Amino acid sequence: MLSKAQIKHISALRTKKYRTEHAQFIVEGKKSIAELLKSKFEVVHIYYTQEYKTLEGLNTVTNKTEVSLSGLSKISLQKNPEGLLAIVNTPVKTNFVWQEKNYIALDSIRDPGNLGTIIRLADWFGANLLCSKDCVELYNPKVIQASMGSIFHIQVHYADLIESLASSKLPKYAAVLNGASAYETEFKKHGILIIGNEANGISKEVLENANHMTTIPNKGQAESLNAAMACGILASCLFR
Amino acid sequence: MLSKAQIKHISALRTKKYRTEHAQFIVEGKKSIAELLKSKFEVVHIYYTQEYKTLEGLNTVTNKTEVSLSGLSKISLQKNPEGLLAIVNTPVKTNFVWQEKNYIALDSIRDPGNLGTIIRLADWFGANLLCSKDCVELYNPKVIQASMGSIFHIQVHYADLIESLASSKLPKYAAVLNGASAYETEFKKHGILIIGNEANGISKEVLENANHMTTIPNKGQAESLNAAMACGILASCLFR
Repeated sequence: MLSKAQIKHISALRTKKYRTEHAQFIVEGKKSIAELLKSKFEVVHIYYTQEYKTLEGLNTVTNKTEVSLSGLSKISLQKNPEGLLAIVNTPVKTNFVWQEKNYIALDSIRDPGNLGTIIRLADWFGANLLCSKDCVELYNPKVIQASMGSIFHIQVHYADLIESLASSKLPKYAAVLNGASAYETEFKKHGILIIGNEANGISKEVLENANHMTTIPNKGQAESLNAAMACGILASCLFR
Repeated sequence: MLSKAQIKHISALRTKKYRTEHAQFIVEGKKSIAELLKSKFEVVHIYYTQEYKTLEGLNTVTNKTEVSLSGLSKISLQKNPEGLLAIVNTPVKTNFVWQEKNYIALDSIRDPGNLGTIIRLADWFGANLLCSKDCVELYNPKVIQASMGSIFHIQVHYADLIESLASSKLPKYAAVLNGASAYETEFKKHGILIIGNEANGISKEVLENANHMTTIPNKGQAESLNAAMACGILASCLFR
């Protein structure tokens, strides 16, 4: 059974303000929760339906409550909840330090689906992720959902993007619509791929810190590609 | 003003059955409607708010009705309608014939967002699109929305995928998780990229018609990429 206080707390975690105040966030769905339970993230509480009683890793969780699917519907953000919902502690932030690795740097990505998809991409390509401070919040439930568990694999930092880029010696490749072909660019062993805002692209100040303007050649009539899609295609060019 | 009959007709067009019976579909949003008005598709009726009175191409449309935003909300599928909705005639189907071009072939893609995104990709890369008969319907409003107007640029055919593939001499590259690296594959001038179902991948029978098994090398911990994302990355490898 869910208490009124539990329902109230979980519902309030839908807002960024409350998530920040309480340093907690919500994770839903089988795939995400399976990755959560394999990670070092601290689970505060798991609510599960009978179907998931024997889920791997669930026995290591101290605070857990079996609920009915209709009970879970009261706290779930999904239209058709799968039967698993976890409250998780936000990990303590570490300072951002450049390493000799590949990076994706996001300038003002606002769509949570895009951020989640890019986290999954960064995880696939083994890249680190750096977000400007005005990117959508990492613990937005739609970000978590779209990352498909990758949020528990890779570190995502938020920082002043202009300052950070200025302090790195890695080559910086800005994704733009009228740059050099990504197919003909010679990429170094490690580099930073910069992706801009969905509507406005990369800001002027960030662009000034880039070394290369890179473009996916357009062979048809589509005017653009979605930001996450462009990120995936360019990541595959740069980080291969 | 919208009549009750109009509201009823447009609402009914949300269902596949009614769309098929009436050979009409709905288009919403500024970008999609702008591309529609530049295309050869037949507009049955446009509903627009005052804001779009002077939209380019609108003067060439015979049947149009200015409505209030609250009027438009009654017929729109969007949470926040932009102020433009068109009823369009489904074009007459043409028979599918292979050409000396690049193709994306979809085996049982079920998610309308994925199909729309792949239409936009095919348009970007100048590829033709062939769908198995059990792919999601082309005129699903979410397909239209995700294609961002590209549905008015490229032809999309539905056909028996196994038969069609068997009849083509173009090299066929199947997107799989354990094939040869797409980065090390030598691609011919033209070819067919085969993308499988979101949950189950490419069916056995379709796979048997492929010449090459191709994979985006995984350098991290993510188990998979979304079907449309994999399609975009592989299309950029094959069709460059």
